Amino acid sequence: MLTAWMARCGIHARTVDKRSTKIYSGQADGLQIRSLEIFESFGFCDRAWKEANHLIEMCMWNPGSDGVIRRSDRVPDVPVGLSRFTEIVLHQGRIERFFLDHIKKHSKDSIHVERAVVPETLDISEDLCDEHSAESYPLSVKLRHLTDDEAAPAQNKGSTTSDGLFRSNLAEDDTDALIEKAKEKQGTSEIVRAKYLVGCDGAHSWTRRQLGFQLEGEPTDYIWGVLDIIPITDFPDIRMRCAVHSASSGSLMVIPRENKLVRLYIQLNEIKPDASGRADRSKITPETIICAAQKIIAPYSLRYEYCDWYTAYQIGQRVGTDFDYKNRVFLAGDAVHTHSPKAGQGMNVSMQDAYNLGWKLGLVVKGIAQPSILRTYQSERRRIAQDLIAFDHKFSRLFSGRPAKDILDESGVSMADFKEAFLKGNLFAAGLSVDYGASMLVAKAGDASEQGDGTDVSSQTRVVGKQELATNIKLGMRFPSFKVLNQADARVWHFQQRLQSDGRFRLIVFAGNVLAPPQQARLTAFCAALSSCSFLAPHLYTNIAVLTCHSAKRIETELLRDVPAVLHPFDQRTGWDYDSVYVDDASYHEGYAEAYAGYGVARETGCVVVARPDQYVGYVGALDGDAGWEAVEAYFRGVFV
Amino acid sequence: MLTAWMARCGIHARTVDKRSTKIYSGQADGLQIRSLEIFESFGFCDRAWKEANHLIEMCMWNPGSDGVIRRSDRVPDVPVGLSRFTEIVLHQGRIERFFLDHIKKHSKDSIHVERAVVPETLDISEDLCDEHSAESYPLSVKLRHLTDDEAAPAQNKGSTTSDGLFRSNLAEDDTDALIEKAKEKQGTSEIVRAKYLVGCDGAHSWTRRQLGFQLEGEPTDYIWGVLDIIPITDFPDIRMRCAVHSASSGSLMVIPRENKLVRLYIQLNEIKPDASGRADRSKITPETIICAAQKIIAPYSLRYEYCDWYTAYQIGQRVGTDFDYKNRVFLAGDAVHTHSPKAGQGMNVSMQDAYNLGWKLGLVVKGIAQPSILRTYQSERRRIAQDLIAFDHKFSRLFSGRPAKDILDESGVSMADFKEAFLKGNLFAAGLSVDYGASMLVAKAGDASEQGDGTDVSSQTRVVGKQELATNIKLGMRFPSFKVLNQADARVWHFQQRLQSDGRFRLIVFAGNVLAPPQQARLTAFCAALSSCSFLAPHLYTNIAVLTCHSAKRIETELLRDVPAVLHPFDQRTGWDYDSVYVDDASYHEGYAEAYAGYGVARETGCVVVARPDQYVGYVGALDGDAGWEAVEAYFRGVFV
Repeated sequence: MLTAWMARCGIHARTVDKRSTKIYSGQADGLQIRSLEIFESFGFCDRAWKEANHLIEMCMWNPGSDGVIRRSDRVPDVPVGLSRFTEIVLHQGRIERFFLDHIKKHSKDSIHVERAVVPETLDISEDLCDEHSAESYPLSVKLRHLTDDEAAPAQNKGSTTSDGLFRSNLAEDDTDALIEKAKEKQGTSEIVRAKYLVGCDGAHSWTRRQLGFQLEGEPTDYIWGVLDIIPITDFPDIRMRCAVHSASSGSLMVIPRENKLVRLYIQLNEIKPDASGRADRSKITPETIICAAQKIIAPYSLRYEYCDWYTAYQIGQRVGTDFDYKNRVFLAGDAVHTHSPKAGQGMNVSMQDAYNLGWKLGLVVKGIAQPSILRTYQSERRRIAQDLIAFDHKFSRLFSGRPAKDILDESGVSMADFKEAFLKGNLFAAGLSVDYGASMLVAKAGDASEQGDGTDVSSQTRVVGKQELATNIKLGMRFPSFKVLNQADARVWHFQQRLQSDGRFRLIVFAGNVLAPPQQARLTAFCAALSSCSFLAPHLYTNIAVLTCHSAKRIETELLRDVPAVLHPFDQRTGWDYDSVYVDDASYHEGYAEAYAGYGVARETGCVVVARPDQYVGYVGALDGDAGWEAVEAYFRGVFV
Repeated sequence: MLTAWMARCGIHARTVDKRSTKIYSGQADGLQIRSLEIFESFGFCDRAWKEANHLIEMCMWNPGSDGVIRRSDRVPDVPVGLSRFTEIVLHQGRIERFFLDHIKKHSKDSIHVERAVVPETLDISEDLCDEHSAESYPLSVKLRHLTDDEAAPAQNKGSTTSDGLFRSNLAEDDTDALIEKAKEKQGTSEIVRAKYLVGCDGAHSWTRRQLGFQLEGEPTDYIWGVLDIIPITDFPDIRMRCAVHSASSGSLMVIPRENKLVRLYIQLNEIKPDASGRADRSKITPETIICAAQKIIAPYSLRYEYCDWYTAYQIGQRVGTDFDYKNRVFLAGDAVHTHSPKAGQGMNVSMQDAYNLGWKLGLVVKGIAQPSILRTYQSERRRIAQDLIAFDHKFSRLFSGRPAKDILDESGVSMADFKEAFLKGNLFAAGLSVDYGASMLVAKAGDASEQGDGTDVSSQTRVVGKQELATNIKLGMRFPSFKVLNQADARVWHFQQRLQSDGRFRLIVFAGNVLAPPQQARLTAFCAALSSCSFLAPHLYTNIAVLTCHSAKRIETELLRDVPAVLHPFDQRTGWDYDSVYVDDASYHEGYAEAYAGYGVARETGCVVVARPDQYVGYVGALDGDAGWEAVEAYFRGVFV
């Protein structure tokens, strides 16, 4: 994800991976709604959507009074009406493929993921960290190149079923061993000088160790196994997402996958951590895991002829103390938050860490944005990690606990509580409840450090947007989506689709009723201020794309007559821009005008919104030539150099 | 398209093209709804849908009483509610790319389009034509291989703007010249022995000439130019599909395309055919064409900096006398029907010729179907070509004619007539009115030769389906689409999406209310007959896929308990089939159960439908164990060996 941003922003970057291959089986698989929106903003959501299995319904199976499991509930997997997307499931290797293809295309084949390369030393020139000149490279990393064979984990050699235990949190880290091996064999090494370094290097993060930062939190005694199999079963809901609580054999989650595969998360009650707190990996095989599953799912039969992958993990929730070092070295993903995988959050939240950081780095490296915006990475994402850990703590205990026999069984888990936690957690799990706090990037009222993780992200030019002008375009949350029509060709788009991840901010002009003379006058004044603003005019179109949505009747409106030229600029070679002006009006084939109502914007008078390059809402204000414009300018003065 | 079918059916085939490259610019661009359904059945519609421009609205511009053009009408480009697709526009080179990728994948890289290869002689062993043994190869074709340079048309060398005139019907055929050149240079030649040959070799078809068949019809005096440009204009509807009739400078059609391109079809009033009936190509340049366009579109300005491609053509309608020779040599596309391109029919109808023929050839070559089914190619497609030519004759005259000044101006074209013709032609143009006549493949009442082009396609075992059991699944028309849910996982599908083009017939069981005991009994009897039928059982799943849609409540129905196993067969290695049984019930995110009503099938009692491998409806009948089953068997006895 981070490399994708580097490719999109045109940043010279290198990406190294200690493993010698991409993922070919197993690992993460769930893609939440927000991740799909992000994929769409990069232009490859359709590939995932087509190949993936779609999760529509969640079925809950619990023991009846006779101790036999039965289906107690069916609920939609994601709330109805929440999004044009649902949760989908696709193996991580395909997702890596989409990213690799995207990076290749947008970097013009100049950035590759370099495999079988391990970092050996990190040197930081402390005095250069605050110096943001083009020639300042405060970081120096020694990289060592392994052969493919050296980089392959011992467990993975020669087996038929893919064994994922070597990547599990039950396994020791092998980074140091790899470095030692490479040194012994005198593998090639090189020194890379860099302005920034991001460690997306997992729970055992080498980068985090160099910085001396900690993951705080405790493991539990719960050990779970994971199987990717083509199941042969008479269990009725094997193609539904299921949570199965057995009376006394533990719990199981069913995640139906693409190509007839089903992923099973299976509680391994018979395997416990030893005195050192670590479980014996040698006892964990596909056979022991399926045996545990059979006990849970009885009286239904369950077996397989084909197993694609398996692993196991120990549940625990930990969050990093620090997400960055002097805004020069950053940590993302499992390097700063680990938890159980069953809510499908790991890959999604980790990608979203990098999605948050990438464009900020891109704009700072290019000298467009002030380096201070990098502080918002920890403030925004560490807060999310804390929320995630709290969510997972609650959810995984409810899932791993023994179901209560009856209302008097206080040591058991109430299945009503479990269902409620699932439903409540749905919006969070979909990734749509993310609400970044006030900062130079979010013109929100309130205390910036209280709303984040405590990091100082206050802006010198404090701007507070007028939330009441767009009640459903929440400051700090992602720009929501409703259908609009292109004024020039009447095609329907989800408005969010026009906010592509190309590193540009969006100035979104809800132009209101452009055919009403007073509103036309306000719009004209605003556009005049826009084109004549000496601070912003140079950024227009290059760093700030302009999108318009008006509310007049489409067929009564003429783009060239009724919409100021700055909103659909003329190009000497290609003529007028026909892709920037939209209208909230009825369509022939896809229903009626609901965008202004959905966004909570007044149809006559509209408003102005600034969306960050990651689609999060930075500013909402009035469409006014003077006061309205000054606030927009002040917002960008807090962001741009 | 034909090669795609060969790849899907696993047929050993070769495809040769006299040109040395695929299309890189210009040529056909419109994709009609039926073509998109076909692309979807091959699995690549999404690629076209994503890259293409979507045509939503058609605007009509006509002269007012002052002679100045103004917009007189806006109509939806395709009728509302007709389909999940609309008309889209994408340059032919991309469409060829999708096919080439598909062929590569499904032929396991064994079939390639061999370029710069011309046929030199065709020998037919007359006595072998009716002998359908595996060793019988009645055809022998001599192929000559050119160098790329030899195969490149003279006009295409060294120009900056792509000149499409060399492919236009204004140009002479160069096949003989290419053959002569190759002979002189002693280019490599080879003899290919074949069971079947299909000439998709254009209006000048070499194959047609070898057979001595004619194209019947006359050219008109209307000459039109075509420009693919990025327009710089103040014409308001340049991103709409437009028909512009000027008072006295001719007509123009606007087709907005992908990547800011717009295609203009422009009547060239000042260029006329000479005494030989042929226009002087040397007068036709991008400059002369844009000048003609400027006169038509005045008072609006129109110019360009970038021209991607241009060509010109002379309007005429011609249809082939014969579409096959002894069912061994076939002709498709422009080889048997030529007409004007403005209704976007050429590429679509031509692809659909090959789509009709490919699976029939595939099944006959594999020894599954009787060779007599090949007779339906001419009967079905020549009739379509005749309808097309009649449509184009009317439409192109209305479009090329001078608009009437007023109601008394009888030599002018009434703009009301033009609009009516457009609206009436819409269903035809979308490709959805195709209605194949009675034959061994279509169990329809009435006279087989009257319903086709006169070819004898009567079946030995005449079966007539019961249309009244599925009033909107019309015998001879394509299986329409409504949304259904997968019983096993609740995912919504357009039912037509489950009729993939893999060479298999579909037995579609509308199982009705499977939870009602009488209906359950009927279904059980039908399924028992299905599994025990000695003629059909060997074809089940391999040549006849089984799809079910029932009408009981999804959540009250259990797949394994309520639906007979033959409808979702068990596999030793992969367990039960979860992809074959659907339900017409409400979905969480995509609306309510409307499939049975849409199909016109009784919810309680259902019916049985057979769809051919090309999705056209072959049979409709009752879901009965005895009489119902016998008719299904009789249908297939008329088709399979």
